[in-house]
Amino acid sequence: MNKKFFEELKEKIMPFFDKSGSHAFDHSERVCNLSLKIAEGEDVDLDVLRAAALLHDIARRKQGKGEVVCHAEDGSEMAKTILMETKFPKDKIEKVCHAITVHRYSKGLKAESKEAEILQDADRLDALGAITIARIFDYGGRMDRIIYDPKIKPTGYHHNKESNTSFNHFYEKILEIKPETFNTKKAQEIAKERYDYVKGYVERFLKEWNGEL
Amino acid sequence: MNKKFFEELKEKIMPFFDKSGSHAFDHSERVCNLSLKIAEGEDVDLDVLRAAALLHDIARRKQGKGEVVCHAEDGSEMAKTILMETKFPKDKIEKVCHAITVHRYSKGLKAESKEAEILQDADRLDALGAITIARIFDYGGRMDRIIYDPKIKPTGYHHNKESNTSFNHFYEKILEIKPETFNTKKAQEIAKERYDYVKGYVERFLKEWNGEL
Repeated sequence: MNKKFFEELKEKIMPFFDKSGSHAFDHSERVCNLSLKIAEGEDVDLDVLRAAALLHDIARRKQGKGEVVCHAEDGSEMAKTILMETKFPKDKIEKVCHAITVHRYSKGLKAESKEAEILQDADRLDALGAITIARIFDYGGRMDRIIYDPKIKPTGYHHNKESNTSFNHFYEKILEIKPETFNTKKAQEIAKERYDYVKGYVERFLKEWNGEL
Repeated sequence: MNKKFFEELKEKIMPFFDKSGSHAFDHSERVCNLSLKIAEGEDVDLDVLRAAALLHDIARRKQGKGEVVCHAEDGSEMAKTILMETKFPKDKIEKVCHAITVHRYSKGLKAESKEAEILQDADRLDALGAITIARIFDYGGRMDRIIYDPKIKPTGYHHNKESNTSFNHFYEKILEIKPETFNTKKAQEIAKERYDYVKGYVERFLKEWNGEL
């Protein structure tokens, strides 16, 4: 499928996403770019990969509102309906759906195609790096969460403001995204570089807080 | 004045500050630490410096609520009242008040003492670095501002969500804090290192956004 097709697909699905926040459509665009980067030189179906990347979080807002339990499962169904209305090859739709269904690495579902492996990797890569730092504090602000308090120790990630600080999210989730756990070699390399950057940010933040820098 | 005095002063003034957000009390504590760091080896009155640093934003919340026009002017008055109720040396209070009155560098008021120069520097230093990055996105989230949109160009800083993106704040304000404009040599050095870090963050953010990293 050509560029025009995917531009039109974007227009079509945009209304399903939040306008701002950590899961606005820009996340899907970055995941799509990262997917294509990882796929370089690999034998994968780029139509499937692009469609899956753009659509993988289509039900995320519904999950946020409590309308569905798992945005991957429901998103897979939604993606099918949406793609059926387009000129996307019918025989490729199931591959797109599989990649979306298993994209949540934390759920432990197995990616049974190269495209699904790459989507998992790209989605996790977008949780590492400079933009992640922005997303964490942006989200914390929206939740009226405090930025950091040395007296509050990391525990586990909770979606309520009393539970913890924005900064602790680095320990609770981000720094647990170990580069060696990515599916593909290429993603492992990108992850390593991004992981080190985030780790450096965390260390620097603490030094500044303690007046050491 | 000993450590105990300043611990008690902190307890006394804490209720005047927001519990979270970019001007919660932790900002004042960092400004105090930075002030002491800049003052190392300088001939300054540390009592004056510490008191001024801890109290410099005491009227910030009132300004935020629209109760006063300038938190530096009103804060100076409040600081005087508060210190008069303590054992802080009466003959040093005016020096504290001067430093607070002129602490806002952007207002262009002249710092007429070393302590006032250092406070200006320390306050501006806390607007550069890893913690600043956190504060910018935290504030943006609170304002329901979007993180970044390449179509929206930097204009000027406005306190409403429609005006701009969190990311543009780096261009509109942070990267305008030039290291050579700091009063003291020591602060210039610290500023240079922090400025470069923030600049690197901004460049990296864009590279990630554009799929180049």
